[in-house]
Amino acid sequence: MNELEKLLGRIIQRINVNLRELEYDVSPFIKNLVPLNQMVKFHAFYGITPNHSLDFLFNHSNLAGSYFLGKIQVRNSILYKSDIRGDELKSKGDVFHYQKFEIPITTDEGIDIEDSFLIKTLVHNFSHDPETLEKFFIRDTITSHYANIHGAPMDGSFLGPFSTVDLTTMRDCVIGAFSYIQAGEVDHLNIEPGTVWVRSPDDFNFHYRYPADRLKDYICFDKGAPPKGLFIDFVEDRKEDFGQLFNVFNIEQPASVPESSSLNRFSVIKPKTYISENVMVAQRAYLENAWLGKGANAQEQCYVINSRLDGFDIMAHGAKIIETNLGENVFVGFNSFLRGRTDSRLTVGRDTIIMPHTIIDTKKPLAIPPGHLVWGLITTPDELESNSIALEDLSKIDAGLMKGNMSFEGSGAVFVNAFRERIHHILEANGAFFDGKKNRGHAQKNQNISFNTIQPYPDGELQGLYPAIVIQP
Amino acid sequence: MNELEKLLGRIIQRINVNLRELEYDVSPFIKNLVPLNQMVKFHAFYGITPNHSLDFLFNHSNLAGSYFLGKIQVRNSILYKSDIRGDELKSKGDVFHYQKFEIPITTDEGIDIEDSFLIKTLVHNFSHDPETLEKFFIRDTITSHYANIHGAPMDGSFLGPFSTVDLTTMRDCVIGAFSYIQAGEVDHLNIEPGTVWVRSPDDFNFHYRYPADRLKDYICFDKGAPPKGLFIDFVEDRKEDFGQLFNVFNIEQPASVPESSSLNRFSVIKPKTYISENVMVAQRAYLENAWLGKGANAQEQCYVINSRLDGFDIMAHGAKIIETNLGENVFVGFNSFLRGRTDSRLTVGRDTIIMPHTIIDTKKPLAIPPGHLVWGLITTPDELESNSIALEDLSKIDAGLMKGNMSFEGSGAVFVNAFRERIHHILEANGAFFDGKKNRGHAQKNQNISFNTIQPYPDGELQGLYPAIVIQP
Repeated sequence: MNELEKLLGRIIQRINVNLRELEYDVSPFIKNLVPLNQMVKFHAFYGITPNHSLDFLFNHSNLAGSYFLGKIQVRNSILYKSDIRGDELKSKGDVFHYQKFEIPITTDEGIDIEDSFLIKTLVHNFSHDPETLEKFFIRDTITSHYANIHGAPMDGSFLGPFSTVDLTTMRDCVIGAFSYIQAGEVDHLNIEPGTVWVRSPDDFNFHYRYPADRLKDYICFDKGAPPKGLFIDFVEDRKEDFGQLFNVFNIEQPASVPESSSLNRFSVIKPKTYISENVMVAQRAYLENAWLGKGANAQEQCYVINSRLDGFDIMAHGAKIIETNLGENVFVGFNSFLRGRTDSRLTVGRDTIIMPHTIIDTKKPLAIPPGHLVWGLITTPDELESNSIALEDLSKIDAGLMKGNMSFEGSGAVFVNAFRERIHHILEANGAFFDGKKNRGHAQKNQNISFNTIQPYPDGELQGLYPAIVIQP
Repeated sequence: MNELEKLLGRIIQRINVNLRELEYDVSPFIKNLVPLNQMVKFHAFYGITPNHSLDFLFNHSNLAGSYFLGKIQVRNSILYKSDIRGDELKSKGDVFHYQKFEIPITTDEGIDIEDSFLIKTLVHNFSHDPETLEKFFIRDTITSHYANIHGAPMDGSFLGPFSTVDLTTMRDCVIGAFSYIQAGEVDHLNIEPGTVWVRSPDDFNFHYRYPADRLKDYICFDKGAPPKGLFIDFVEDRKEDFGQLFNVFNIEQPASVPESSSLNRFSVIKPKTYISENVMVAQRAYLENAWLGKGANAQEQCYVINSRLDGFDIMAHGAKIIETNLGENVFVGFNSFLRGRTDSRLTVGRDTIIMPHTIIDTKKPLAIPPGHLVWGLITTPDELESNSIALEDLSKIDAGLMKGNMSFEGSGAVFVNAFRERIHHILEANGAFFDGKKNRGHAQKNQNISFNTIQPYPDGELQGLYPAIVIQP
């Protein structure tokens, strides 16, 4: 295991060099975070389909976990149960529109991970930075449990557990637990835990901060110990169900699924679950007594328990709903946690947008009205009132708005439109609008994936490292 | 599946071009031999250990099955459940002794498989041809079920089921079912089924032919149908036990095993099985109520059922024993089938050599005396008498010997010595003489293997083909 230890030491040093201006030392956080001998036990795997061009290079790395689709290079890195999914990367010949620029894509985009340590981290989508359209880089970066690097090139950064960096190019930053950052281009920031920040320069700026004393019950990340809190317990409690899926090669489809829908074979499907047409259930999604209407999707790390999705609903990566009804066309943002109780269900009206990283945790019946934007921490009707606004009202705002811990500047209409466009794009990419011929998306393309597994050296100097592997079509 | 069909067509054509002088058409044998859609269902795998240098290249091929250790290249080929094991290949810096030549090995030896179709075929050991020491080639070749290419470079040949070509360089030959050829260098031969031929030019020539009408009950291979007979039934009856092993990732060791021994994780171990020290049980071996004494080994495709091996016994690839006792130091050659009955056990005395491809099938108790050479088809004491000779007596022969269907020319002493040396080498290579420090062999080196699995494209034009893969340390 000597080489693996040296590799981790070198990665930590690189991050600390990058974070020197912030006077930040990641070492105490990384120590005890994951015992290295875990890395030897797991196997990695990658999916193969005729719909995703294959182009992998793995070198001097540990890859425990993962399903890579698309073009990925990994060098001098440790990927621990990561879900990297390169099935939306840009292709040679595409044209990228950015402000006044029409930028031609000259080679197929690839994800390049170098000198990084990603723990249970999803990397999805394509990089939106017009400066580096063909190379989605992740360098000198450490991410903690269930962080998400979503279309966000990154260098020299440290991401706390359940944080998301979305469509943002980031250099030399520290992102606190459960923070969501969508801000274009940022560097040398140390973002507090529980920050939700959505910025489009010159257009709008949305900012919310969780009360620290209440967030810590859900997620808390201190030096010298792995992350703790309800989010971690919730995921750990269901870990065993996944373990069984990963120890078996061939598995019977656990539910009847229409031809236009796909259940990833590494998703947990418990009774009684119903899957309609054009539904996409991704790897490591968890469905239990779940009713998924037409065009709905449950992305990676989503949990749908005793809940119903009326249709065309989006469960973005890491979203969790329990004892909840979603009307049609509801968007539940990244890592949101929506929990009703058996006799006190939570209902979300149609066309409502649950902001990324929202917590709704109610012990009494609660109804979110249709057509609203909802954010932050909500446990009572009063908190719902101060943490939501009708989309119609928000569209009229152009001077700014303060509500509870949230501040908004800029054009509400631009903000709402940007969100609606993105929701439409996500449904489209996932195949929600497939009509039997046109509009094929992930639900139709990801039905039949072969999975290859790879393991590290079982002992010796190289224990825990994987052999160098190159895979081409 | 278009590409896979084209590939098979092209392989068949290549063999037929090679076999044109023999006026032999392999097509009617290959048709219906294995449905191509089987190739899509299976996954291939290769082992990784710190003791075997990794160097794989797979290109435009189907690899269903297999565990590759060592340096292997596969191009334009179909490997169906093959057990290629490159863990005895020659290394750069070795010196190969051949007659008066001392030949330096200038690069690590590799197995190169090109334009070939190998069905459930083992390729083991290193190539002994002094003309091509670094490249063990298998080109333009089709092998049927459970054939074995043992250290035998090969071009343009067709091997029938349960045949073995051993330490022989072969060009443009057809080898009948259950034939064993060890003959140095041969070309343009059409060998009848059930031929056992061991030749060392200028030294000796051993030849035996099975009676065709009796062999066909055991193995029979006609045009237009897969091979039939007791050997096939025997293997098929136990197929399900193996299937379970291949569908699971991690498996508990099914028997207690001393530190100096290794049970391959893809072997079937049924109660009550006992494993002594320095024992090697290879992949796809099958043990049921088996007692394995110190230094014994059971190689690939071996079956040991209700039997006891006293120690330092060799079960060469494909050997099967049922209701049988082996004294110490017994060699059971490739694909031999030794069957006693519950109340009529077969016993084999110590130091006896069962020739490759021997069938002993007795319904009454039968005792093979110690220190004998045994060959051919034996079902009664009379047949044992005409199909065996004391090694001591054989050593005295230098003019020749005819016994039943067997003819021997040349020096009996050289023949017996050659066999004894080989037996010693096999025990040594398998780690039978390990003393806790010295003489490590496969039993000690193959204990901790990581297995990587790879799968073909699940559908589309390339269905059944595997992506190109390069693997390096």
